[in-house]
Order: sequence, then structure tokens, then C-alpha cells
Amino acid sequence: MDRFDPVARTITLDLPKPTLDDNRSHESRIRSALKDSLGQSPWLSLDICRGLPDILPISGYKVETLVLDGPFGWELAQVSTAGRSLRPYGLAVDIGSTTLVFYLVDLISGKVISTISKTNPQRVHGEDILERILFAGRNNGLEILQTELIDLFNSSIQEITAGKGLRPEDIFFITAAGNTTMCHFFLGLDPVYICREPYIPVVNSFDMIRPKEIGIDVHPQALLYCFPNVGSYFGGDLLAGILTSGMHLREEISMLVDVGTNAEVILGNRDWLVACAGAAGPALEGGILSCGMRAQPGAIERVTIDRNNLTVVYHTIGNKAPKGLCGSAIIDLLAAMFVAGLVDPTGKLLRDRDRSRMQQIGGEWVYVVAGIEETGAGKPVYLSQSDIKNLIRSKGAMYTILSVVVQNVGIGFEDIDSFYIAGAFGNYIDPQKAITIGMLPDIPIERFKGLGNAAGKGAVEALRWRKAREEVEEIRNKITYLEMNVRGDFMSQLTGALFLPHTDLSRFPSVAKMM
Amino acid sequence: MDRFDPVARTITLDLPKPTLDDNRSHESRIRSALKDSLGQSPWLSLDICRGLPDILPISGYKVETLVLDGPFGWELAQVSTAGRSLRPYGLAVDIGSTTLVFYLVDLISGKVISTISKTNPQRVHGEDILERILFAGRNNGLEILQTELIDLFNSSIQEITAGKGLRPEDIFFITAAGNTTMCHFFLGLDPVYICREPYIPVVNSFDMIRPKEIGIDVHPQALLYCFPNVGSYFGGDLLAGILTSGMHLREEISMLVDVGTNAEVILGNRDWLVACAGAAGPALEGGILSCGMRAQPGAIERVTIDRNNLTVVYHTIGNKAPKGLCGSAIIDLLAAMFVAGLVDPTGKLLRDRDRSRMQQIGGEWVYVVAGIEETGAGKPVYLSQSDIKNLIRSKGAMYTILSVVVQNVGIGFEDIDSFYIAGAFGNYIDPQKAITIGMLPDIPIERFKGLGNAAGKGAVEALRWRKAREEVEEIRNKITYLEMNVRGDFMSQLTGALFLPHTDLSRFPSVAKMM
Repeated sequence: MDRFDPVARTITLDLPKPTLDDNRSHESRIRSALKDSLGQSPWLSLDICRGLPDILPISGYKVETLVLDGPFGWELAQVSTAGRSLRPYGLAVDIGSTTLVFYLVDLISGKVISTISKTNPQRVHGEDILERILFAGRNNGLEILQTELIDLFNSSIQEITAGKGLRPEDIFFITAAGNTTMCHFFLGLDPVYICREPYIPVVNSFDMIRPKEIGIDVHPQALLYCFPNVGSYFGGDLLAGILTSGMHLREEISMLVDVGTNAEVILGNRDWLVACAGAAGPALEGGILSCGMRAQPGAIERVTIDRNNLTVVYHTIGNKAPKGLCGSAIIDLLAAMFVAGLVDPTGKLLRDRDRSRMQQIGGEWVYVVAGIEETGAGKPVYLSQSDIKNLIRSKGAMYTILSVVVQNVGIGFEDIDSFYIAGAFGNYIDPQKAITIGMLPDIPIERFKGLGNAAGKGAVEALRWRKAREEVEEIRNKITYLEMNVRGDFMSQLTGALFLPHTDLSRFPSVAKMM
Repeated sequence: MDRFDPVARTITLDLPKPTLDDNRSHESRIRSALKDSLGQSPWLSLDICRGLPDILPISGYKVETLVLDGPFGWELAQVSTAGRSLRPYGLAVDIGSTTLVFYLVDLISGKVISTISKTNPQRVHGEDILERILFAGRNNGLEILQTELIDLFNSSIQEITAGKGLRPEDIFFITAAGNTTMCHFFLGLDPVYICREPYIPVVNSFDMIRPKEIGIDVHPQALLYCFPNVGSYFGGDLLAGILTSGMHLREEISMLVDVGTNAEVILGNRDWLVACAGAAGPALEGGILSCGMRAQPGAIERVTIDRNNLTVVYHTIGNKAPKGLCGSAIIDLLAAMFVAGLVDPTGKLLRDRDRSRMQQIGGEWVYVVAGIEETGAGKPVYLSQSDIKNLIRSKGAMYTILSVVVQNVGIGFEDIDSFYIAGAFGNYIDPQKAITIGMLPDIPIERFKGLGNAAGKGAVEALRWRKAREEVEEIRNKITYLEMNVRGDFMSQLTGALFLPHTDLSRFPSVAKMM
């Protein structure tokens, strides 16, 4: 899907020179020429008008104009002497609670010419977003949280433009996608009711603003589009993900899952979309595990265990000495341990199976993946009994959420044609391993598709293709949201999912066959 | 014509309270309720959104909202707890080069509740607007001119609101009408090309702005509409005048004349409008005459001369001792002198007719209206020979402009059903006297209608009736503009008009009959 009609256009105008018979104002002259080109009369700010008498006569009425697709149609954003080519850039931003990713987009070619990612500075106030919401409610907490993001925007804009020999004023359009809470922090909206029943955001649909209104330094005429939310637990990042997947355009049914602390799920096709979000727990991301860590150098990202001789083979990011386990390795590891008979279906470590790797650390039994001699850090990398229990709760919650959504629309997992995995480590999950532990449904492996940074890609799409905003609105209006927190069927079905892979093995024929 | 549908509305909303089954955002909740009421989704600024969590829950979701008819549809401008009634006000301003008139309008009742007028502070840089254009071109002249107007706006807003127990923040909408140059000063647009061939304004059609953009302190969400211009010499004040007259809505043909230094003329009906402006000279306003003055206390405003015994009777404003002649009196006086045989058709003073009042002052012959004993100021009030020559040139130019316009559309003056007179002293002109000197065409006297401050009235109309802006645009698009400065027929016809009333007496049958 490559739809290209960007939010900015440059238009060269050879205007008729003023005469006594054609003494229209500068503004009328340029407006009517643009109207001819655009099919609609553009909006002109007072600042743009003020500059016209300095440019039009000097340029001999041959000018290069830059127009932006604003909230109410085209706007004239810049006028310069023809020949001095205007090259507008856009900035697409994935405002993640952990990481922000900035994409610099050439709005003429449509290409992403630079990408940088930055740790969210708000993490000092809490890894968990709920802690940040509480922080926002104290004193001037919200102002601090907003300022941290705005400052990061400004420094990142400086960095990403300077890296390409550009200036911040070369950026004319910003698109941003984030979850509902992050968007509230970003725009200075009180997030406190998001986490209190009945979970009310201040804003779901943000009318477009000027970046300067919130202190972002780019071109003064620039615009900022923030992807709307569906609700407190279903944000613009997911709408951007749907946009990226294209699932809303096809007849076949797709499912999109954003794997993280919250499992966010969308099921549907071009006619209907059902969404749901529920807490899956941070275990899947490694957040709360004894040796969990982010995907950074030294993190084990892949693990296999030979089911016969129990040999462990792992791979670390950057080929460094192992420091911990990142999300993809955790799923790999639990699947391998289950297949190798190192844990039983309830998640209990079977100590007799490998007495050398089963050790007691801090008063509880663990399975050691890399010993002290391999880590060189005085402590081994392992998965503990309570880690496994946490993992099973998280994967069980994830599977149950998927099941409930599928059942609610009266279909089965087998009816799903494409299964998109988004999220921080979505691209790195091995679907077969996730099936083995009963986290993802047992459907043909080729139906799983990693979306990468779906939110960021959606934000880029909204720069490259100006009708995307309307389409996002259509998606938003089409979505039926299931409130998982208040559903009885979630709790009743969860129990069966708290096993490896499930109490009902007929749901996982490929796993049954392998065992 | 009373069309009432103001640019602001208050709407009381009893919103459904949030529940788990209806956990829309505050923004969505209020937006959809307003959409139901307005028939369109309103625009919400970030500032308005920020305030919602402070108001909605506390008010029990019963709120009073204020919406404004903005450039792209309705905008939400304020939300408060129901019961605390919102009363929005508007400010209509006639930005005259001599005087600014401010009208405070209650946008719920539509009534003008206060009016104040202020001398244009720019007069220190030149009575004549051309001098101010030159001033604008020097150093930071434009900035000074703009600041003077903005400061006057702010102090007048303080004064007019305080006088009614209100605050500037109670003003949500400003409409302003002025001539093209004044609008350029007001908005900080370079006026220099307005007075140079081919007479190009920077802007004809101003997109709506926020008053705060130019430093006007009213409600932060307020809007400012500036009437558009047709060209350098045909400004928004005249479009406001047409709007006030209603001539653009009727089948019958009307003519509208704004009498001043420039004679601005519109001829037409609901199907067509022809406009023209030409220099008539400042003599008609008294501007350059020996004893000319503004309509202030002590100004003679009416004069009659008994054609038999030559007794002079006059009336001064405020019944003060006479200090000078204002515009209406000047026309009265010349007409009376002509009828009484004190000047001949060429404008020459006939000294023998009244040797007591004909005197020599400063080396030239004058006709004394009020002697030193009456003025008590050591100098008489009089009309000099050169004053009369100036007056005849001005009235001749005025008549010629009217004639050329009428001829250009192929009609005669007798086809004009209503003849509107606008301008500073338009209301005070005695049409019969103006006919007598050959300044206005000789049509039945009841067809003449004074419009008063047509620009100010039009600006008030644009507050009271939100569709006025579209109608102004229709008027503007309908107008055909005749460039009088480049017309040969003007010069060729002027000669005949430089007599009292005209070389061709058949054009003035009522005058011929009277003589």
C-alpha cells in the first residue's frame, strides 16, 4: 500500500503583474492563482500577508509557494522568490511511554530521511504510566511532564535536522501518535480521570494545533496533528497501527495485537472493527522478571534448549556477555523449557530434569540460562519459579483477551487471515514459541506478521498521505470497543489459560503434536 | 431589514454523566451535544479542552456553553457551570481616518448598549491619509501607526466595557470596517503601494484572526473580522455601507455616495453593482476652507439667506458663538448665496449685491456670515472667493463622478429609486441645497436618504447577523469597479460641472425653476 499525496505541496506561480486594469491586492492575486491550482481557496495568515509586498514585486511576481493541508483545507505557509526552491519536511513521532521515535520525512519525495529514538525522560517519575499519572496530579506535576516531552521534542528536532543540514524551521508538519495518557501529557491535559472509573480522558479527538502553541520550535506556520484516541485504554498509537496494517481496507479478517504491559487488540476488516485492551502484566516485556531487561547490548534475545541433551544456546545483542533476558528471549526460553520437560503444564520447575541448571537463589528455585562464568558479572542470568508464574499469568491474560474478542464477534481464530504483531518487541517474537506457551493462538505460522513500530509508521503515513487523517477518523468511528475490565467472560476463561499451553490441548494441535 | 442571528450563541447542555458504558472523553461528550444543537461539529481549542476536567465533573455535567461563528464554522469559546449565565458581547468598530466609533453590542439581545467615538490618534502624522502612508514608509512608521490604533482599541475597550460594568474579556467578537489604508495600518500591512500606480493593496480579503494576534486584549478565544476591500480606493467601510443600505437585495436601482475627500459611489441593485471612487477634494468637508471646521460646538451647521433682504440666519452646534462653518453649512451657504444672487454661475462674488458683508480679508474678497461682534473672537466667519472656487471644484468633481457612473451603466439619474448619502456629514446635508449648487443630481427630494454612520452600522450588522460576512463576500464579488483616475470621460465632463449648478441647466430643472 503506497498512497502518496503529502500534507505539503510546493506550487510555482507565475502571477500576472499588476496593471491599472488588474490591480487586485497581492493577497487576491496569489489566492486566486492558488485556487486555480488547488481547486479551493487557501487560507492566508496575517503573517503571510505581511510578507507579500516584500516578495511579490522583487520576485517579478514569479514565486514558489508552499501550502499545507490544514484542519480546514489548504493554507499558504510560505512564499519565496521562484528558483529558491522550498523543500518542506515533516516530523512523525511515536510518543511511547518508554521510547520516543522521531522520523524526519521529506514531504516532496515522501521518504524518511532520518530516524532517531530517545528514551522518554518521564521514566524518572515512574516506569509505569500509572505512577506518572499520579505524579501529574501533584503540585505542578503535569507541567513538569509536559515540559520534559516538549524539551525532548525541541532537542530532538535540533538534532535530527542538523544531521541533515537542515534547520527546525524546515519542518512544517508534525504528526504524533501515542497512547491516550502520553497524548495528555504531551498536550498538557489532566490525565487523572484516565485511571479512575469510569476511565474518562479529557480529549479523544484533538483538533489540529500549531506546534508553537505548546512551545515546539519549528516553522511558525507549521501544524501539529495528534492521532485521536478511542478511549482511555485505546490510544492513537493503535489507530496509527491499524492504518499501517491496512486491515481496515481488506475484506479478509485480520487481528492486530500490540504486545506490552497492556494487550491491545483489534479484530476486523473493512466493514467492522472490534477493539479491546486489557492488562496482560509487564512480565511479557521482561519488566518485572528477576533477570528481565530491555533490548540493549548484552540482552539475550534468542534462546534454544536441546530437548534431548538439554544444551542451552543463546544469542545476545551485540554479542556481548549476557546481562539479562529481553522480551523475545523470555518467550523463547519458557517455550523451550516446556518442550524440554523442564517445567510442567502448571509452570512448576521440574528440578530432577536438570539438576545442574536448577539452583536456589534468594530462597527460591531458578533455572540458570547463563552462569557466573559466562556473565562475568558475579551473578547468573536465570528464570525463577515466581518469574514463570508471572509469565504464565501474563501470557494467559493475553490469550484470554484474544479469545474473548474472537468469541464476541462469533468467529474462531482459524478465520483470521492476517495476525499483526506490533509493539516494542512485537517484531522479535517468534510466533511458534508464543504458540507453544499458549500466548498466541495456534494458527498457521505464515499468518503472523510483525508490524515493527506501527505507531511511528502510521504517523509517517499521515505525513505522506493527507487523506490518512480522514481515514483515521473513519477507523475510529467504526471501532466497537469491548471494555475488558468489566467482562465476566474474561475471568471465567482465564483459568484455563493459566497452563502451558492451556488446559484444553485441542486448542493447540501443533503443540500437542510436538509434545 | 432586521436580520437577527448573531455570531455568538449560548447553549445550555445537560450532558449524560459518564458511566462504564459511556466513557467518552469530556471533549467527545460536549462536542457531540453541541453537534446535535448546532447541526455541525464545533472546533475546540486546546485551551478550552484543558479546562473541561475542571468544569464538567464539578458542574454535574450541566453546563452553559458559548459558541462563536468562526471562519470555519462554530467554535466553542467558553464553558461554565450552568446557572452562571454567560453573556457575550461584541464590539463593532468604524475605523475612520478622522474618528473611530466603537459600538458595544449585546450578542444575545442584539442591542447596541453603548457607543463611544474617539479621534484617530494618527492625525498627528497628517490629516490627509496620504501623509500617513508616507509616514508609514519611514523607519518604524507603520509600527507606530498600528500601535496607536491598537492602544486606542484597548483603552476604548476598557472604557466602553467599564461603563457598563463589564470587562474586556466579555468581548468575544470584533467586527471592524475601515477604508483600505486604515485596515492596512490596523493590521500592520505595508500601505505604500496603495497610493502608487497601479494602486495595489497588500490584502483585499482578510482571513479572520484572533484579536490577541495584533495585541487587542479581549477574551482569548475572541475573533476579529475585518470587512474586505474591493481595491485601494474602495474599502470595507463602503461594503459595510452597502450592507447597511440593503441596496444589494432590492430590484430597484439605488445609488450610495460616501461624501468626503474622496467621493465613493455605488450604483446598482440585487443583480449588479458598479462602484467608483474619485477625488472630490476636501473642500466639501470644510477641510481646506478659510473658516471650515468640524461639526463641533460653535460650528455653524445651518445657514439661510433671505433672497429679498439678504438677511443671514444661522444655527451653531450647541448654540455657542460661531467659530466656523462645518460641511453641511458650507453647502447651505453656497446654495443660499447663489439663489440670492451673491455669486454668479461661475462662482464669482457679486460684490455690489451686499457691500456690507463683502469685505477684503488677507488681500481677497470674502462674504462674511458672522462678523467679529457675533463671533466674539476677533475674527469673522466668512467664505472667501478662493474658498468658493475650491468648493465648486469639489462639487463639480462629485457630480461628474456620479454622472460618469450613471452613464456607464446606460441609465439616467431619474432611474434611481433611492439615493443614499453616507459619510461623516452625509446625514446633515440638505439634499435640496446640494442640488442647488449642482453637487447632487436633481431627482425628487424624497429619494434621498441619509445613512448615518453606514460603516459602523454595517459592522454592527455583521455581529448581529452572522450570514452578513457571506453577503459581504457576495457584494464584493458582484461589484464592477470603474477606475475613475484613468477615465477620459471624467475630465471631459468635469468642465460643465464647474458652474453653479451646471452649464447645462436642463439637468437641474428644479433649480432653473427656482431661479
